[in-house]
Parts: sequence; structure tokens; C-alpha cells
Amino acid sequence: MSNKTKRFLLPESEIPTQWYNIQAEMPNKPLPFLHPGTKQPLKSSDLYPIFCEECSNQELNQTDTWIDIPEEVRDRYKNWRCTPLVRAYGLEKALDTPAHIYFKNESVSPVGSHKLNSALPQVYYNKQQGVTNITTETGAGQWGTALAYACSQFGIDAAVYMVKISYEQKPYRRSMMNIFGAQVTPSPSMSTRAGKDILTQHPDSNGSLGTAISEAIELATQTPNCKYTLGSVLNHVSLHQTVIGLEAEKQMAMAGEYPDKVIACFGGGSNFSGIAFPFMRHNFSEGKKTEFIAAEPESCPKLTKGVFEYDFGDETGYTPLLPMYTLGHNFQPASIHAGGLRYHGAGVILSQLLKDGYLKGVDLPQSETFKAGILFARSEGIVPAPESCHAIAATVREALRCKAEGKSEVLLFNLSGHGIIDLASYDRYMQGDLTDYVPSNSELESYLKDIDVLQP
Amino acid sequence: MSNKTKRFLLPESEIPTQWYNIQAEMPNKPLPFLHPGTKQPLKSSDLYPIFCEECSNQELNQTDTWIDIPEEVRDRYKNWRCTPLVRAYGLEKALDTPAHIYFKNESVSPVGSHKLNSALPQVYYNKQQGVTNITTETGAGQWGTALAYACSQFGIDAAVYMVKISYEQKPYRRSMMNIFGAQVTPSPSMSTRAGKDILTQHPDSNGSLGTAISEAIELATQTPNCKYTLGSVLNHVSLHQTVIGLEAEKQMAMAGEYPDKVIACFGGGSNFSGIAFPFMRHNFSEGKKTEFIAAEPESCPKLTKGVFEYDFGDETGYTPLLPMYTLGHNFQPASIHAGGLRYHGAGVILSQLLKDGYLKGVDLPQSETFKAGILFARSEGIVPAPESCHAIAATVREALRCKAEGKSEVLLFNLSGHGIIDLASYDRYMQGDLTDYVPSNSELESYLKDIDVLQP
Repeated sequence: MSNKTKRFLLPESEIPTQWYNIQAEMPNKPLPFLHPGTKQPLKSSDLYPIFCEECSNQELNQTDTWIDIPEEVRDRYKNWRCTPLVRAYGLEKALDTPAHIYFKNESVSPVGSHKLNSALPQVYYNKQQGVTNITTETGAGQWGTALAYACSQFGIDAAVYMVKISYEQKPYRRSMMNIFGAQVTPSPSMSTRAGKDILTQHPDSNGSLGTAISEAIELATQTPNCKYTLGSVLNHVSLHQTVIGLEAEKQMAMAGEYPDKVIACFGGGSNFSGIAFPFMRHNFSEGKKTEFIAAEPESCPKLTKGVFEYDFGDETGYTPLLPMYTLGHNFQPASIHAGGLRYHGAGVILSQLLKDGYLKGVDLPQSETFKAGILFARSEGIVPAPESCHAIAATVREALRCKAEGKSEVLLFNLSGHGIIDLASYDRYMQGDLTDYVPSNSELESYLKDIDVLQP
Repeated sequence: MSNKTKRFLLPESEIPTQWYNIQAEMPNKPLPFLHPGTKQPLKSSDLYPIFCEECSNQELNQTDTWIDIPEEVRDRYKNWRCTPLVRAYGLEKALDTPAHIYFKNESVSPVGSHKLNSALPQVYYNKQQGVTNITTETGAGQWGTALAYACSQFGIDAAVYMVKISYEQKPYRRSMMNIFGAQVTPSPSMSTRAGKDILTQHPDSNGSLGTAISEAIELATQTPNCKYTLGSVLNHVSLHQTVIGLEAEKQMAMAGEYPDKVIACFGGGSNFSGIAFPFMRHNFSEGKKTEFIAAEPESCPKLTKGVFEYDFGDETGYTPLLPMYTLGHNFQPASIHAGGLRYHGAGVILSQLLKDGYLKGVDLPQSETFKAGILFARSEGIVPAPESCHAIAATVREALRCKAEGKSEVLLFNLSGHGIIDLASYDRYMQGDLTDYVPSNSELESYLKDIDVLQP
């Protein structure tokens, strides 16, 4: 082991200076967002009431392949980037596989996940525009923590709606947001109409991401100088995350290899996009045959069992209609521990790419993901986030297939975050207290029915 | 800010190849350890029943200035070292100080603290000797987690006695040790005579580090092929931690500066030694005038209010008699949140250096330390461990003094770990629910009285 290089490190000067905008190069462009009232295609200015102008423009930019990273953002990236690319010799040995396994370690960020890659530019652009208050929602808390950090760095007030069950069961993410100075409200709350409506109908509601999004948008649109931000699903979020893959591309070259498979977990698609898009462009233009695997929980299987339709991004219906793979905006995912993957839809770009065969989804039971996570912790020394455990479990499946087939393929996965604030979930797994949950066809159909009502 | 370098990064090749053994260069050597029965000076072979041979030899090595780091250990260091040296521009700005503040970021290790620097070589040397089982104790859990990690890397079984109140109140460190495969027992337990004795007298005992050490030593000495390890206080632990300061020395040179003050928190002395000793050698030999400041909690003030005497390292009296600054081995520190600083004594080398005026202690109320920690989180983006908050608070005092005096001194502190598993402590601080505690003179005297009985 001693003479093998494990970590491929880039100096600060190699932090990308531009993000990669895959929209400009996709063989089939995404379908337009539709106005929920008129059902007409949206212009970016239609998004200005919700998002800051630069993010709105990036959202619908289908022409510029490369978009400059502002120097102020790049400067903040220097607090932890470039992140390491690691050859997982320990995991390879534990699996006795001929595959070469690499992972990009995004868990080293100050908030423990990749979410900061987009929180910083989003807050920066808002600050530039003179916005003084930002709202958002958070499920497990990774995104809310990243947003709170970014707001503390740029001196903006942050208001975070946190899904109530997480607020109560996972108080530490809330603590971290408080430390960074953010105001955190359990959702549904009585502070918005959307929240009041839910609480009136379901006084004991545990909340959902869809509801929290509705509350955060409502607050943003009704408060002066206040905008909304989102940590996944949207195109500009995927754009910002491409720093992951752009660095990884250089680091794989340092290792003298190119990935046969690129693997990431999938909630709304932000970390998947980040690692995948910079490699996928070589599939478009240079005939590379890399496979892209999105690992989702079997309890929330939008990629493998969802439908490609126009649907809302939130529960109440404040967002534009988005053309995406969805389980229906009222879908109520089971309370699995990978809170970041409990979302009903996939991003618009990713949905188009899935439809066109550029990526494939694989759905995993959470028990398999925790088993893989513990194997990873013992062999590589890092406790992964429950979300990231999905990427690891999918990688383990591939590595065992390589072993069975005697192939030494190159596997690259994204370690999107660490699990140090999610140790209670590991406890429950180790105590045999976790159940797997697969929604029945009739359950899936009952939610999918709601979509049709909204079809243009 | 954009053009200023914040992080000074070294490549893997700059990981030190040797540790610095300050014992060989100290103006006054430490007094010998004494056998608790015979009161005669110990030879290293007298330690073999407790520790592995190499650690025992390093413990009493007063001749070799440099000790080679085994390649297998250096290879494991590559999982996260070299750690960054960071110029804290954000903190400087928040304090409006002319001081230049730097910190060495040891929180980036896979277990979140500097403890791994010594856990890896200790486990490695045990493995080389054919040891199959290792015991240790842990208070807040930082050391136990590092030991569990190291044992999982080298394939050795770990048994950790965890102070009962931490076991119950801070379950997440225990979870992390379990994930790495260690067996964790709350102390006092019925598995040892030391534990049984305490439980017989005090059935409701919350435990203490002193008791847990007694239990871990007893198990090690009574189990075949089993040795004990310790995460602080001892000389070989300080030795291993010097990688921190050796890297920092090169990084300060990259920044073109040399520290006027080196600051670290102080429990048993491991992280303090690590950052301080490599700089202190230039005070010995080249007439440098750097000041070394050890930040301890006012509730456990061994450096500022302890006595320099021979005392036991544990509560039951299994350890050799150590010449050290101590509050008495029965001292019961208040339940502050910086669990890693709740220890009655200072390391033997450090005690001699304190006696000879090479370092000074400063004692801090925990409320001041949390206030400093939150200021640091908001200005530098990292949530520090409650222990590390003591170093930050002492640095803030120095920076404000520099401001009052109009001096731009260079301050370097060690960020020994992050506080992401200690967020409940921050919650209590933010809710105004933390109290400060200063032991009275009569309380201190009551414990100091016990020492005299043991004097040679």
C-alpha cells in the first residue's frame, strides 16, 4: 500500500473558473417551464419575483456552455476546495474486486456536504442584487446548513423552513443553522397561508419538503427585499455543482484513468449533476461510453417508477410547472433516514437526459445502503451520510459484478457528505431497528392520478 | 480578500518523516516516573505489562531528538494530512484587530480531531508486536473514536471504557465507535475490580476519566495479548502529535511569518504539545522569544492552581507516580461541555516546561469559550469543538490586547477538532442554560491533601 497514491489533490489555483452549463450541449434541450396559471412557457423574468435575476437567467440559459464563477465565490470555495479524489484501495480489498474504485470526497466542506457549492453563489448573486433576506426550506438539514453558512459569510439574513419531523428528531442540524445565525421554523407553521391550510386539515402533520417549499416561497414573495433559494432540482443548482466533476476530471487524469461508470445518489439531482455532467459532455461529443448511475431509495423511486409529466415542484402549487420524472407532487415518501432523497421529482435537465438514455436509475433498500456505509467506514475511515450510502451501495453492486465477470472497470462515485450528524440513523440500523419500504403500485398510482389534473 | 492567500497547503510528500522528541533537548529533563509500590525510578521495561514495547521505549527516551515515523503510519496519515494552515482574515475583521491570526486546522481528520495522529502509531506498534486486543478509556469520545478508527484500519479489536455520563448524554460518539467496530462499555462497570469498587461505594456514579483509565488498564493487564493505550498526558502521545507543529512551521514560512504566540487548549496536553514543541525548540536553541499559552477551563485549573507533585494518572492508582502539575487524582471536575479538558493532571514534559517558564496557563470560563466559538463559526465557517473553543477564546483575548496596544503580533492557534458532535452544548449555551464554575480554594485543597499520602 505504501507506494500507492491514494489521494489526488489539486492546488487552489485549479479550482474551476467556470461552471459547465450542460443545457447548451444537450442533444435534446429540456422542455420549457410553464406558467401554472396560463400554461405558457416561462421567460427568466417570470422567475424574478421568486429568485434573484442572475439565478433566474442561469436557470433558462440554453446557449452559454461555460459560465464564469465570480471571483468572490471562488474565493469562498478556497475554504475547502479543491476536494480530494480518493482511490478506495481499502474498499476494493474488502470487496476483493478487480474494479478500480475512486470517490470524490465532498464531505470535507465546512458544512459536511456538497450543498455549499451552490449556496455560496446563490447568496452572492442575491447580495449583489441588494437582497437582504433569503428564505429556503430544508429536509434533513444539509441544504439549510449550507445556506445559513453562506448567508453568514455574505452578511444576509436567512429564514429556513425545516420539515417538522426533522426539526424535532434531528435537532443538531437546527443547532448548526442557529450557530451560523439563521432563523429556523418548523414546517408546517402558522406563519404562512400554505402552512395554515395544512395545519387546519392535518393538525398533526409532520411536514414534507413540498410543504416547506411552499412556505418558503410564500414568505419570499410577500416580504420586501427577500428572495427564495433552493438546494437541488433546479438547473442553476446543477450548474453550480459542476465544480465537482470538473475537478474530478483533472484528478482522474492525474490517476491515469477514465471512469467506466459514474455513480451518485439522487434526491433532486444536485450532487449527481455535479459529478456527472462534466464527464457526460464527452459522451455527447467524443463518443465516450461512460455509464451514469443514479442511486435512489426504493421508497421514493421517481427515476425507476415515476412518469415524465409536467408537475409542480412543491405541494401547494406555487412553482412553475416543470417537465420531469415525478411520483406526483402530493407523493408522501416513507420516513427513511436519507432525508435528502425524499423528494417526488427529478430536475428538468436530468429528466430529459434520463428520457434520452444518458443515465439510468437504480433503486435501493435502505438496509443495503447502511450496510454499504458501514463497510465503507471500516475500510476507508469515513462515515458517509445516509444519502451518500446509496451511491456506495450502488458502487458495491457494480464492484461485485466486476468481480463476478472478472472485469477491472473504473468506478467513480461522489461522496456527497459525511454522516456525523446522522449517527442516530446508524444506531437504529445496527440495532436491527430499520425497515425497508417499497410503495405498492396502487399507492404510486393514487399519487400519479393528481398530476393529470394539472396537465396543460 | 480575493487576492489574499488564506490556506497554506502542503503536498503529501511534506508529511513529516520523523517526530520531534522534545525530551532530548529540554534544558531540564523531566523527573523520572516512580514505581507506585517501590517508589523507585521506572525503566521502560517496567511499562511493558501495560503498554507495547515501542511506546514504552518512546515514553522514556531522553536521547533521540528525532524518531522515524513508520511508513505504514505515514501512509495512513495521507488519508487527511497535511492539514491546512489558515489565515483567519474573517476573525481578524470581526475583532477589528491588527494581529495576524493563523490556525492549524486539525478538525479535518476523518474522526474530526487531532487524536488520530497518535492513535494510528499506537495501534501500529501494538500490531507489530502481535497484540490482538487494545483497551482504552474516553471521556467526551474524541480519543475513543480515533482509537476505534485506527483499530479498524489495522485489524485489531478495541474495547473502550466510556465515562458513563458521556455514554448516556452523548450517544453519537459511541455510535461512531460502534460503526468502526469497537466495543464500548460505560464506566464504572461491573467488568473490573476498579469499577465494582466504585459502584459498591457509589451506585449512582456518573464515572470519571480517572475511573475509566483504571478499568481499561485492569482489563489490559488481565487479558492475554492485550495492551492499554492512552490519548493524552503521556510523552509518546505528545511525540506523535508533533506532526502538527512540524507542518505548521513550514506553513508559517510559506506565509512569510513566525508566531509571537502559540496557543492551544489544554486537557492532558496532547494537542498543545503537538503545535508547541516544534516551535519551542527554537526558543531553546536560537533565542526565539515565542510565548506559549495553554488554555484550560477555570473549572479544572491544574496549570494555574495545581501543585507540582508526584501523583497518579488514574483514580484507583494503577499508573506509575508521575511528576506533574495536578489537582489531585481524586479531583472531580465540574460537568463542563469540554469533556476532553476534564482531567486532573498535566503531562510530565509539559509540567517540567511550565515549571521552567517555557509556557503559561490561562484559565477561561466556559461561557466565554462558547461565545468565542460562535464568533469563529460565523467569521471562519467552522464550528469548533468545545475544547478548541478554549484556544479560540485565549486567542481572542490576545487579539483584543493587540488592538488595545496597537500591535500587529502574529498569533497561531491549534484548532484541535470540530464541534459537529457537540452541537447540544452549543444549544445549551445559546439558550442561556450554561453556568460557569470556579472551584473554591477549600475545594481545591481537599483534593490536594490526598496527594501527600502518596509522596515518596
